[in-house]
Amino acid sequence: MPKSVYLAGPEVFLSNAREVLDAKIALTRAAGLVPISPGDLEIPKLDDKFALGLAISQIDEELMNRADAIIANLTPFRGIAADTGTCFELGYMCAQGKPAFAFTTVAADHGARTRAYFNGVWHSDAQGLPRGPDGMLIEDMGMIDNLMLHGGVVRRNGVVVVGNAKPGEELTDLATFKDVLAIAAKALAD
Amino acid sequence: MPKSVYLAGPEVFLSNAREVLDAKIALTRAAGLVPISPGDLEIPKLDDKFALGLAISQIDEELMNRADAIIANLTPFRGIAADTGTCFELGYMCAQGKPAFAFTTVAADHGARTRAYFNGVWHSDAQGLPRGPDGMLIEDMGMIDNLMLHGGVVRRNGVVVVGNAKPGEELTDLATFKDVLAIAAKALAD
Repeated sequence: MPKSVYLAGPEVFLSNAREVLDAKIALTRAAGLVPISPGDLEIPKLDDKFALGLAISQIDEELMNRADAIIANLTPFRGIAADTGTCFELGYMCAQGKPAFAFTTVAADHGARTRAYFNGVWHSDAQGLPRGPDGMLIEDMGMIDNLMLHGGVVRRNGVVVVGNAKPGEELTDLATFKDVLAIAAKALAD
Repeated sequence: MPKSVYLAGPEVFLSNAREVLDAKIALTRAAGLVPISPGDLEIPKLDDKFALGLAISQIDEELMNRADAIIANLTPFRGIAADTGTCFELGYMCAQGKPAFAFTTVAADHGARTRAYFNGVWHSDAQGLPRGPDGMLIEDMGMIDNLMLHGGVVRRNGVVVVGNAKPGEELTDLATFKDVLAIAAKALAD
């Protein structure tokens, strides 16, 4: 019985969302896994946007409940950090004890991106920890995002794959997804 | 037996983290709940920062596993969206079926903040959905952040409280936390 994998990520917001989601779905199937994609959901017709938001939340949780594993796209989205919905979903699947895999197409890690957010202005505090000009801690663990995300994956024997997409192609480049998919397919077949 | 509540949020990064975390802990205790705070953890002495990140991830997950509920601070952090670690933690607790409460001290909702991110430049697509100048969808559900977060809380009969802190005090103002805490304490006592 092939394992199913929930394909979490901000691709649903792309102008060519259907195209990119379909490409990920086809690649997942070709890797011998059953793709479960938030783009698969039948969006109910609801005039009230808040009620629509609740309905999509419920459908996506149900999709996760029946998935065996997750591959989360943690590529920075509209800023220096991963899409918040994807972060919720990764935590949701980790709590269910399911195998978790993640990737980013951006090579700069969380600490480097946070320093760039502060235009490179930072200092070491008395404990030797990096802080921004506002005095706030710069988490710098050599991880791709907050330690709960990267740590949650690695501690479940998952793998975090770091790619290096061309500027402007961070959310559409599929090379890194292919790499993490190959690793997930092998792990889930064992 | 008083219920325990995990106090998730980006306060751990503040320059006066200990002070703010202690204030939240004291308020929670005064409300008749047992506070469980990521600031409570005994951080192990590890030279390797990646290993330290994994250790903190494990400790925080263990703290969540023994908490009865969560209050998540979803105030925008270093950008237009909530702290990614807090989003992971909210998803983690929702998957465990635990009561979830959330708050933000910023009145502008997710749709409004995303429009501001695009400097107010957006258009409606053929389906009437708002899109930024890059063609990407602006999620606009009348929610404080991505629908998985706001929806996950509301669908579990939790409450999302929206405050309006003074500029610069978004992460230190405790007024909104007090409001959501009062609601959570009442709900968890029932």
